[in-house]
Order: sequence, then C-alpha cells, then structure tokens
Amino acid sequence: MERWTKNIVVIGGGTGTFTVLSGLKKYPHDLTAIVSMADDGGSTGKLRDELGVLPPGDIRQCLVALSEADLLLRDLFNYRFEGGGLEGHSFGNILISAFEKITGNLDKALEEVGNVLKIRGRVLPVTLDKVWLRTKLENGTELKGENEVNNSWLLSKFGIKKLFLNPQAKANPKAVRAILEADIIIVGPGNIYCSILPNFLVKGIPEAIRKSKAIKIYNCNLMTKYGHTDGFLIKDFVDTVEQYLGKGVFDYIIFNTKKPSSMLLNKYSSQGELVEPDCKVLKDKKFVGADLVGLAVYRQNPADKLKRTLIRHDPDKLAKAIVSLL
Amino acid sequence: MERWTKNIVVIGGGTGTFTVLSGLKKYPHDLTAIVSMADDGGSTGKLRDELGVLPPGDIRQCLVALSEADLLLRDLFNYRFEGGGLEGHSFGNILISAFEKITGNLDKALEEVGNVLKIRGRVLPVTLDKVWLRTKLENGTELKGENEVNNSWLLSKFGIKKLFLNPQAKANPKAVRAILEADIIIVGPGNIYCSILPNFLVKGIPEAIRKSKAIKIYNCNLMTKYGHTDGFLIKDFVDTVEQYLGKGVFDYIIFNTKKPSSMLLNKYSSQGELVEPDCKVLKDKKFVGADLVGLAVYRQNPADKLKRTLIRHDPDKLAKAIVSLL
Repeated sequence: MERWTKNIVVIGGGTGTFTVLSGLKKYPHDLTAIVSMADDGGSTGKLRDELGVLPPGDIRQCLVALSEADLLLRDLFNYRFEGGGLEGHSFGNILISAFEKITGNLDKALEEVGNVLKIRGRVLPVTLDKVWLRTKLENGTELKGENEVNNSWLLSKFGIKKLFLNPQAKANPKAVRAILEADIIIVGPGNIYCSILPNFLVKGIPEAIRKSKAIKIYNCNLMTKYGHTDGFLIKDFVDTVEQYLGKGVFDYIIFNTKKPSSMLLNKYSSQGELVEPDCKVLKDKKFVGADLVGLAVYRQNPADKLKRTLIRHDPDKLAKAIVSLL
Repeated sequence: MERWTKNIVVIGGGTGTFTVLSGLKKYPHDLTAIVSMADDGGSTGKLRDELGVLPPGDIRQCLVALSEADLLLRDLFNYRFEGGGLEGHSFGNILISAFEKITGNLDKALEEVGNVLKIRGRVLPVTLDKVWLRTKLENGTELKGENEVNNSWLLSKFGIKKLFLNPQAKANPKAVRAILEADIIIVGPGNIYCSILPNFLVKGIPEAIRKSKAIKIYNCNLMTKYGHTDGFLIKDFVDTVEQYLGKGVFDYIIFNTKKPSSMLLNKYSSQGELVEPDCKVLKDKKFVGADLVGLAVYRQNPADKLKRTLIRHDPDKLAKAIVSLL
C-alpha cells in the first residue's frame, strides 16, 4: 500500500457513494465527494419545489458518511419526520436547505454544515445550477425528472436516445479543480442513469476527467436494475459510463466475484439480477475482481428506506480493493 | 461588584428572558434559564400538535441568547422558512423537536443542542409534562391555550378568576435543584400571564422559590399590555406575581426611570402604556430604579417578528442593574 496521502475524488450520489466514502474514510487520504444535483424525488423534491433550493438528499448522505461527529448527531441528520407539514423530510435535508437560504450559496452552506458534522474531507455539488434530468427514449417518450427515470421500466424496453439536463448546467469550479488535482478518481457503484451519469451531463466535468492525470477507477454495480440495466454484463456498465466520458477512460474496473446467498438473491429478485464476471473481463488486467458483498446486517435507517437494497457493497471490502490499486 | 461567581437562575420565557440572558452572559456568573412550557402559538403550536413534542420556541430564544457560536449558526437557529410544508417554522424549533424525538427526552436533547450552539450555561424546561394554559375569567369565559390568552383583550375587562395548567404539571427536578442552589433568582421582564406565571403554576416551583435562600429579583416591565395589564403600576406587577409566589418574596424590584421618546411611545400606543415610577415605589429601598430603555435599533429578526416590540429593555443596562445588587 502507498504510504503517501492521495487526493481521492469520488463522483456520484446516493447509497453507492455513501458506501465508498464510509470505507475510504478509514484511510489517511484526502477525500472529496462530487455529488449529482439532479435528484428531485421525496423530501428533496419537495424542498426543491417549495423553497427553490438545490437538492440536499445525496449531499446529506455524503456528509453523514464523512462525519466524525458522535452517533447521535449523525442519527439526527438522518432522522425523518412523521406527521404534519414536516412529514417525510429528513432533518439533514432541512438543515442543508436552511443554511443554503441563509448564506444564499450551497457551497458556503456545506462548509458550515461540514463543521457542525465534523466531516473529514469535502462534499461538492457538481453544479450550483438548478437542473432537472430529462430522458428521451427511442420510442419518443420523454421522462421528466430523476424520480420519473428512477421509477421507469421503459429505459431498457425502448432504449435511451438522449439523457440531458434542463437547463444545461455549468460545472462547479471547485469540482473541476478537485478533479484536475486528484490522484485517484472513483466512479460508482450506483444507479447509472440517476446517480452516476447526471454528473457527466454537466458541462466541464467530462472534459476535466479526461484532462486529469488521476488513476480512474470504476466500481461496477453488484446487481442489475430491471427496467434500466436488464442483462448488463460488467462491460456493459463500463461502456455505458464511458459513452459519456470517452472510451477507455477508466484505468481499472473493480467488480465482485462473490455470489450472495440464494436467500438474498431471492429477496432481491423483484429488483434485479446478479452481475456475473464474464470471461472477457477475467482475462483483461484492468478488470480487478474481489469479494465485495456486504455481510453485515444493516441497521434500517428510516431516512434511506426508499433507496437501500439488501445486496450491497461492503464498505471495508470495497475500500480495500480500491486502496490496493494506489 | 461581587468578585465571586454566582449561580444565577433566570425564570421566564420569551423575549424578556432573552434580553436578561443576553446581558448577563457577559459576566462571569453561572447562568441557568428555566423556561415555561405553556407556549402553543405559531410554529411551536404546530410542532406540538403535529409531532407531540414539548414547545421549543422559548427554549430556542434562550439557547440563542446563551450561544457563543458564530453569528451564522445563531442566524440559522432563528431562520424562519417561507413557503410549503415548512412555512412559518423556525429552524431552531425543528432542530429541538427532532432531537427530542430521537432522544425521547427534551432534557437530554437540550444538552446536545447546547453543545452544537456552544452555549454558556443551561436551559431547563420548567416541566417535562405536556401542558396547556387555561384561564377562567370572572365572567365565566374560559380561554384555552397560551396563544388565546396572549391575544385576548378580556383579561383586564373581566378580571382573572383562575389561571391553571391542564393537566397539572410536576416540576422538572433539575429546575427545582437549580432554584434551591441559586444565589440569585431573576423573574421578568415579560408577558405576565403568558411567559412568567405559567412557570409558577407548575407544582414544586413556587415551593422551591420560597425555600431557596437566593436573592430574588423581579424586573418590572417597561410597558403595560392593553387587555392584560391596563393601568398597572409597578406595585401591581409585583403583587400579581407575588400572588403566585408569596407576598414579599422579592428582595428587589428593578424598574425603569427613563422615558422613551414620544415617537416611540406613539408607535407603541396601540399595544400599551409606559409604566411610570410611582411615589410609593420611590421611597422603598427594595425598589431599584435605573435607565433601562434600549436605544439600539434592533435588527428585525424574522423569527421573532410576532413577539418583539419597539420599546425594550437594553440587555447591558438591565444586566448592570442586576449585577449592582449582587
């Protein structure tokens, strides 16, 4: 293992990014999370509509992952209200939104929230523009918003013609700088169309990634998602992401070699299928396989009930696989 | 001025208590605020109804008064949302309520919130029971809730037959201990029926105050409130409070000797009249007069717009008058 501190940039949003950050936090590297600003569902969607703020949900998860505050404060951050006008909102989302309203700037707000939560590292919105995800399917259907894409089964049925942000977004200059100064850039795991690609639709981000001299790593998902990535092999995930970043941009692809228990696979069977290592992948040295499956019984966090799945990466196993490449 | 650190207990709620705490915070004494739990208006009332929590509003003001965190964090605490399901809620109220829901205990929650806000001193709910203020007037009318009392003009018209809490409340043991261990107990200024007396309706509080060897000080209001204290002289304020604590309980009564400008008095003329020093008071040594009128142009804090008035105590002048008695 490399003895020098590295600048690691993790790009994504959602539970996958939470997992990567939680694992890497235990190593003495400098962490920067760059987070998609296209989320528009649930509590986040309501706050966007009603207060006109940027989406706080994915940011909240990254902040909690990087927090070194005591457990109670992290629990508070994920606490979700039940009943009344606050119904469904997580406290952390409200906090981030209030700070954004006061400072008039999400970037400034995140510095302050980061202090309160004693985070190790930084969380940067990929853009400070207010954007919505749009998806045109090959059959002419247009899906409006990340939440609609997330819940749609039509993507793999008809195929995606175009994925774009409305309006077009400019990159957060801090995110561009972080990418250019990175030693390692990590993409995934996570929902390809909802959490990963919306980052690369922001003008300036793919350009910066291509220009950056960082080692670029893609963490492949453990499972497919029906309606989105049916039948995907590891290469299909890589190809889909590289379509937006440039062919061959990733130096390494980390994939899972361990089959979860049949019981877990059965429980998951309404959501998607196991991504199995294919022969092509096993011969190419840039594909790095490891047992990545989480065995821990995760505490069911009410704040995340919509997004969590039963088969997940183990944060420590994934971090170990990443760090072995540095 | 006394060189030893004193245990000062301030009993009340609302803006008056905020003012006393803000002024005394600059002296090296140990401060404990004991706060009424009868508030049920506005954001506080909604949170009580919808989440079943204890009223956070007055607590929030005391925490902000005692906070040594930077201005941004205090601003955040008082930030009031506009629009949507969060309409009218101040962020601090939401924070206190979320902490109460997680810890299941407002007392424990306040320790945590106090750490976040870096407060000097403690804020203690007068009771941990959920209570509502009830007022029976001499004409048979019954007013339900603090908010209804606050907005009523009938109190001075018909006279109060009985003020009580429903259900009856037991004192917070920590509040009783603080009172018994106090060197100085301060009551007022503040809305007599809504912020001051609800503390003394809690079983165990008047008893503790009578038993305590502390020097007891009452800060008389600057102004009357139409419908509540029309025509009140200084002695009438004292008598009203002592009716609940025992005659002669106060060692000192601090009152104002400075007439605010006619312009300010005119602006205030729909709310109440100046309380003028009467001859009887000036001859008695336990009545201590001083110029207490605030001259500062107060930053209009949207969180407090319902409660603030234009003629207010100056925190530093009031604290100086208090400290001169120690």
